[in-house]
Amino acid sequence: MSKTVLYMSMSLDGFITGPNDSPDNGLGDDGHRLHEWFLIDQDGDPRAVERLSGPNREVMDQVMSAGAVVVGRRTFEAAGGWGGDHHDGVPVFVLSRRAPDPALQWPGVSYLSDVGQAMQTAKNAAGGRDVLVHGARTAQLAMAAGVLDEIQVHLIPVLLGAGRRLFGGPPADQQELELLRADPAPGVLHLRYRIRKQG
Amino acid sequence: MSKTVLYMSMSLDGFITGPNDSPDNGLGDDGHRLHEWFLIDQDGDPRAVERLSGPNREVMDQVMSAGAVVVGRRTFEAAGGWGGDHHDGVPVFVLSRRAPDPALQWPGVSYLSDVGQAMQTAKNAAGGRDVLVHGARTAQLAMAAGVLDEIQVHLIPVLLGAGRRLFGGPPADQQELELLRADPAPGVLHLRYRIRKQG
Repeated sequence: MSKTVLYMSMSLDGFITGPNDSPDNGLGDDGHRLHEWFLIDQDGDPRAVERLSGPNREVMDQVMSAGAVVVGRRTFEAAGGWGGDHHDGVPVFVLSRRAPDPALQWPGVSYLSDVGQAMQTAKNAAGGRDVLVHGARTAQLAMAAGVLDEIQVHLIPVLLGAGRRLFGGPPADQQELELLRADPAPGVLHLRYRIRKQG
Repeated sequence: MSKTVLYMSMSLDGFITGPNDSPDNGLGDDGHRLHEWFLIDQDGDPRAVERLSGPNREVMDQVMSAGAVVVGRRTFEAAGGWGGDHHDGVPVFVLSRRAPDPALQWPGVSYLSDVGQAMQTAKNAAGGRDVLVHGARTAQLAMAAGVLDEIQVHLIPVLLGAGRRLFGGPPADQQELELLRADPAPGVLHLRYRIRKQG
């Protein structure tokens, strides 16, 4: 059964970028701090993702085994569209109400405007594997529409003090979660939550 | 060695009250949701704190073994000053720049205006035990002044969508933390962080 799963690195104070994020500064000032758990080893040396171990390895393997990707336009553009291939050529669905940027179109990339349609299309395309969801606004829309199944937060032991929040949109309805796993690992605590469907 | 430790129940989206908190509605609308882990058992029945077990018991014992309390005025007033006795008659230090409310004065309660002085006075009064810190604004001031030692977050598996944030003050300097413990328990994940002193 394919699930839609949000993966995001977040500081303890709720930020997913540093301050002053912009299209040219997608992570914000010093926002790479949130991604050191898979980019930098404990001695401060750059580390290839291939050398991860333990829960960090396991989470990265989950990311890279997704059968499709749903991503917000902002995140997609900040990443340069991953050159059209997030991993292994799996289909990528970009949530946007605007026409595609011609520079960011590839055969495996589709633009969809409705979050429910995007999630269902991605599930159908994922070949029974999970759907990787990227982007705060997309996640909020998906939760509001009841089409997000799980959240994997990589909780980083830092207070950034400013930036873009994962949960910072307009006031939303209360949403109950269920903690499925809590896995401490070097530089990060991996938390997996199931989103309880409203009765 | 006495430590100053913030204890707060926080939703995954960073809130420590529900929406519309006010002096007459200290926890905000439905904010009691954040405190169910020690107030309500899994069948929905009220449960005496005395019946807690496992990590929930351990954390509550830590709270109740503190040798002094430092609390923000807002939190103190919302709690009715605990009738002048938070637990076991330990001294309570209220951080405030305004004159005390005559209705909220007791022999064991002192009002102090400087967060550094409040923390040091509380440590001296705590008889070698830890100092329990209460209140978001107080914690932010203490962190900015470098006088908060640890944070114990009781992370609740819920998104409240609105309310008062634990980390929602004006933009602050980046602060590195060290995760000391992560203890899942019924209805809550207890996270203990050490605050790294700036070099």
